[in-house]
Amino acid sequence: MKKVINNANHVVHEMLDGLVAAYPDSLKRLPGTTVITRSDAPVQGKVGIVSGGGSGHEPAHAGYVGRGMLDAAVAGEVFTSPTPDQIIEAIKAVDSGNGVLLIIKNYTGDVMNFEMAQEMAEMEGINVDRVIVNDDVAVEDSTFTVGRRGIAGTIFVHKIAGAMADTGASLLEVKAAAEKTIVNVRSMGVALSSCTLPAAGKPSFTLADDEMEIGIGIHGEPGIERVPLEEADRLTTILVNKILQDIDYEQEEVAVMVNGLGATPEMELHIVNRKLSQLLKEKDIAVYKNWVGEYMTSLDMEGFSVTLLKLDSELKSLLVKDVKTIAFQV
Amino acid sequence: MKKVINNANHVVHEMLDGLVAAYPDSLKRLPGTTVITRSDAPVQGKVGIVSGGGSGHEPAHAGYVGRGMLDAAVAGEVFTSPTPDQIIEAIKAVDSGNGVLLIIKNYTGDVMNFEMAQEMAEMEGINVDRVIVNDDVAVEDSTFTVGRRGIAGTIFVHKIAGAMADTGASLLEVKAAAEKTIVNVRSMGVALSSCTLPAAGKPSFTLADDEMEIGIGIHGEPGIERVPLEEADRLTTILVNKILQDIDYEQEEVAVMVNGLGATPEMELHIVNRKLSQLLKEKDIAVYKNWVGEYMTSLDMEGFSVTLLKLDSELKSLLVKDVKTIAFQV
Repeated sequence: MKKVINNANHVVHEMLDGLVAAYPDSLKRLPGTTVITRSDAPVQGKVGIVSGGGSGHEPAHAGYVGRGMLDAAVAGEVFTSPTPDQIIEAIKAVDSGNGVLLIIKNYTGDVMNFEMAQEMAEMEGINVDRVIVNDDVAVEDSTFTVGRRGIAGTIFVHKIAGAMADTGASLLEVKAAAEKTIVNVRSMGVALSSCTLPAAGKPSFTLADDEMEIGIGIHGEPGIERVPLEEADRLTTILVNKILQDIDYEQEEVAVMVNGLGATPEMELHIVNRKLSQLLKEKDIAVYKNWVGEYMTSLDMEGFSVTLLKLDSELKSLLVKDVKTIAFQV
Repeated sequence: MKKVINNANHVVHEMLDGLVAAYPDSLKRLPGTTVITRSDAPVQGKVGIVSGGGSGHEPAHAGYVGRGMLDAAVAGEVFTSPTPDQIIEAIKAVDSGNGVLLIIKNYTGDVMNFEMAQEMAEMEGINVDRVIVNDDVAVEDSTFTVGRRGIAGTIFVHKIAGAMADTGASLLEVKAAAEKTIVNVRSMGVALSSCTLPAAGKPSFTLADDEMEIGIGIHGEPGIERVPLEEADRLTTILVNKILQDIDYEQEEVAVMVNGLGATPEMELHIVNRKLSQLLKEKDIAVYKNWVGEYMTSLDMEGFSVTLLKLDSELKSLLVKDVKTIAFQV
């Protein structure tokens, strides 16, 4: 295993230290926790927004903490849900009396632990609600999931909910905006290689040199099928068609994300986006705004995902509202 | 070889198409060229700034085109200098009568081709000047270079020169700010793996499973030595010490960049930054501002570089001046 680490058991702790050392003006780490909050949390008069999940998906989620997006991100161990005691620290730190929304990717462990934290916080008198993101159209049910998995579409949920919270909306209104995003967002990915967890020291699974896996999960969960290597245009077409079979976007306006899974050069993501923009044009789908880069990774996995979000005028205005985070800009 | 491409001979063309498809409001491609400019180029009353180089280093350089940074970026084939005829198109496109500064990374081919384009543009009556970035302290002279190589420190030169140009400064003043940055910036990198050029289809060189190369160039040029795998803290210390042997930063204020070479998870870059911030503190060097991410990559190479820029009050104010690009924010 070749990794730039010290001790595999300390990677999350050391990563979080390095992160706040880099951005001390905008981020802080709650002492003794794996929680990163805005340095000015709690923000008065605003619903607090908390997300999180296993580590190894950077910049998710701490990269999305900042004005107009998340108030806090909770990091679990690598590919492991954060524990309820950590999540409740995040909830307390960002509640200014206006309530807190939890944005949860649909993995059984995440859902269980965030819900438990919600109950504990409510017992302490904090108003908490939650949404569950399940944008991955590849498979129903999976290794760690009942229902569909939550992947890169989660970033759009962060953005829309964060923008809505910034307007001074109520917890119910912020939740409604997040739910509307979830209803309208779909994603799917493909992997060309496995990834290696620091503590395991060897790839989580193997793909032959001439093989790729369509519909892979961001923890390497099985996808739809393993197929011989395809060229970029064909791969992009497979992902887009699967998404459009699931939801009809024709004559609609969409936001697009082409997301690298960790080890894929940016050059290749742009080549994907070229074909993607052609396909959408052919299908009479207008692109309102586009993101190409690494937003929800899987350690050193090679591959990418495509996300489409159907927009109405409300979602459009929230999507481009001013934001200040490390990893997302408009 | 596993790459998300169609035809290895078309990767640059297709990448540039995908890029402008993603950001049509801010970027445009000059028809029939590999030049990306600001969509509003030429900007009246301002010195134009042009950079570029071989492709495969994305987001360099098109990711830095935008308000407050570059006016145009010229892309060569993968790891190959752009040709003078392409560079001169960029110069013409961004000149508003106030002259154009070329920011060149120190590789023999780049220097030769940019200089040739400068001469051709001057014959057409355009006022052109140039600076050459040579921030890599690893080695003197290299496979493609006489003198030191230019690597990630180039991004700081883009930023400072771009900010100075935005003040309405003259070409001489913009050049002076760029030169001051070059004098004060130092970088060094390490690779854990090789990279694979699309057209070659196999790694450019090989590193054994238990080996890394200290001081590698961004095209895989030989570094100082191959050593057994080291932990992150030790690696960071080696790079920082080599930089600080070259220039005395003690009791100074610096800007810091921890740059991933392409396939290194962001988690690991933050672990490097943790140690780096500790080392600088021990040496009584204050960090003014910090960037951690992928800024100057080498396709799918695993590894990272560290860049330190010594600041004075002028450089500080230019460094944090407002900027609007895809890949660099303050």
